[in-house]
Amino acid sequence: MTLMMAAALWQFDLQAQQALQGGPDLVSPEIHADRKVTIRVHAPDAKEVKVSGEWMPAEGFMPGSALMTRDDKGVWSYTTPDPLAPELYTYAVLVDGYRALDAANPFLQRDVATVTNVFIVDGPQADFYKVNKVPHGSVTKRWYPSPGLGMERRLTVYTPPGYEAGKEKYPVLYLLHGAGGDEEAWMTLGRASQILDNLIAAGKTKPMIVVMPNGNVIQEAAPGEESKGFYKPQFMIPKTMDGTYETHFQDIVKFIESNYRVKADKAHRAIAGLSMGGFHSLHISRLYPNSFDYVGLFSAAILPRRQDAVLPAAYDKMDETLATQMKNGYKLYWIACGKTDFLYKNNLEYREKLDKMGMKYVYRESEGGHTWRNWRVYLTEFTPMLFR
Amino acid sequence: MTLMMAAALWQFDLQAQQALQGGPDLVSPEIHADRKVTIRVHAPDAKEVKVSGEWMPAEGFMPGSALMTRDDKGVWSYTTPDPLAPELYTYAVLVDGYRALDAANPFLQRDVATVTNVFIVDGPQADFYKVNKVPHGSVTKRWYPSPGLGMERRLTVYTPPGYEAGKEKYPVLYLLHGAGGDEEAWMTLGRASQILDNLIAAGKTKPMIVVMPNGNVIQEAAPGEESKGFYKPQFMIPKTMDGTYETHFQDIVKFIESNYRVKADKAHRAIAGLSMGGFHSLHISRLYPNSFDYVGLFSAAILPRRQDAVLPAAYDKMDETLATQMKNGYKLYWIACGKTDFLYKNNLEYREKLDKMGMKYVYRESEGGHTWRNWRVYLTEFTPMLFR
Repeated sequence: MTLMMAAALWQFDLQAQQALQGGPDLVSPEIHADRKVTIRVHAPDAKEVKVSGEWMPAEGFMPGSALMTRDDKGVWSYTTPDPLAPELYTYAVLVDGYRALDAANPFLQRDVATVTNVFIVDGPQADFYKVNKVPHGSVTKRWYPSPGLGMERRLTVYTPPGYEAGKEKYPVLYLLHGAGGDEEAWMTLGRASQILDNLIAAGKTKPMIVVMPNGNVIQEAAPGEESKGFYKPQFMIPKTMDGTYETHFQDIVKFIESNYRVKADKAHRAIAGLSMGGFHSLHISRLYPNSFDYVGLFSAAILPRRQDAVLPAAYDKMDETLATQMKNGYKLYWIACGKTDFLYKNNLEYREKLDKMGMKYVYRESEGGHTWRNWRVYLTEFTPMLFR
Repeated sequence: MTLMMAAALWQFDLQAQQALQGGPDLVSPEIHADRKVTIRVHAPDAKEVKVSGEWMPAEGFMPGSALMTRDDKGVWSYTTPDPLAPELYTYAVLVDGYRALDAANPFLQRDVATVTNVFIVDGPQADFYKVNKVPHGSVTKRWYPSPGLGMERRLTVYTPPGYEAGKEKYPVLYLLHGAGGDEEAWMTLGRASQILDNLIAAGKTKPMIVVMPNGNVIQEAAPGEESKGFYKPQFMIPKTMDGTYETHFQDIVKFIESNYRVKADKAHRAIAGLSMGGFHSLHISRLYPNSFDYVGLFSAAILPRRQDAVLPAAYDKMDETLATQMKNGYKLYWIACGKTDFLYKNNLEYREKLDKMGMKYVYRESEGGHTWRNWRVYLTEFTPMLFR
């Protein structure tokens, strides 16, 4: 339906709506009481329709898929053979081989350049990802000046419930995205504001400000939200791991500490990130070795420094700066990684290095790999440990 | 691509990316220098692929469509026969009859329950809809208490560039959505923050706060953003035009005036809305007849009061309250409507009624009908007239 058709809807009521939608008003996904899920698409002229969902075993690097069954009205349906564990799931449909979306489900997520449908199966852990009847923080998209990068840039700020009305100062978590992500990623794929709202309401996490910046130094903002217009997001973005971001990170800290009611000291600063953001968190916390009492490396991309690094000095003197960070002290250095993560070995080697130095950390090993499913879990586990 | 595949991307580079995407890395849409636009989709197994775009003449109430042409690699393409006028355009593709999206274009808009791709052709007027290198306001999703409705509810607040750093007080525009919309609609479909940023930077519009509430009193927030979870948005929502929203609108004004640095007087309050939001603006400005110096009715749904109105008193004494509003005075009462709008006659009758009463208004008649294209234009024309 487009709003061009508002006339028809308003004048001819809901029967018109069905006609205009070009088919029956399907419920999809339907989450049954037993936690099985049915997906339905109306595609009478298609030869074959499949569904490809995050709950299916992957086929190599590709997500798995399953055939849907056509009824005599051209509605294709698929029901999961088993109940799904409580979780947020993404999926898409393949209509005669073309990767399409479930037209009955407008809830979508963009991961780099790929859009998928999304649904949540209720239950423990997954309930942290839902909007519940609890006090809600505010989420602001705001622009800040980065003198270091010579541009105005956009970031996302979560302020906890009660921030605006109060006078209290808050601690700050800097929460960094991975390769191909941007200042939207933790909010949409990571469900960060829901997780914070729910954990704060449960008394598990202290009220805090969460700052989600854009880690791609060539961007002002997420693709489509900057002056370059609507261009296709890429996974590999130039200059993301070359020292530039780490070197100028203080522009962000300075902006936040000048513009929000924060406790501007080491004891009230945390930095964490996933994948590339874990790499950034490692290096930023080391380069400013007396700035963060809490560091979180989620499936961190602990990779050798890139040959094309623009500011290679950022990655020099690794051992000395880590030693200084250790000597200055911190409250928590948290390393989390999935057993099947392709970066597992890199994280293992990094832990061995820290062991050798005598640098303390807490290690959390989970099932699974390099996925948002893990990063949402890590966020729910990491934030309760902060600012104690 | 899912981030499950990050491993492959990181390790095997961009060749892997193409393989993982299941086809060539298409550019779509491609906006040519002559303003013709090409759409491309890779669907080698489809029998027929069409594109349906906002630039095509409608077929009855349905948007028009055109066949795409298949090449020997299974890429279907379509180029507009003529250059497109500068504008924001939505489109979708039909793959063997199934309404799908252009997989190469992750920029989407949700209009009620329907998601479409979007692109912008540069040029006068359309440039107001782009993110340009100008100072940017902040956009916050925030929850407010509504004692009248007995719930916490979500709204969107645009604060102009410089708001946070300054001490100045600002005027406020309350900007209301139409049927099936919510507190997201003006930001996404209406490009409100881009329009405000650009008009303020050009010196055409005074810096102002723009408040975009949710006009569906049964909702805490947009579908998917409230505790009811992910349910399919509907065009016709109960209790939207039954007096409840109008009667409790002061909850919103009170919240804004207690929480933002605003000039809290009639001379610095404006209210405007599209379709149902125009209906709301008409009635709210009349019910609180000494509150708003500026009223904007964009394609207003000036319909008879509903039989099922819960608070019918809101619609009683129409003539008396309008007379009071007239007597109290105002600076601008702006009525805009498209020539082919299905509500044209309703607006004509309303103008005749005002003429008869001697109640002054400014009338703006545009081409076209009941479309976001018109409402974006109306916003760019309305805001420069405010707070002069």
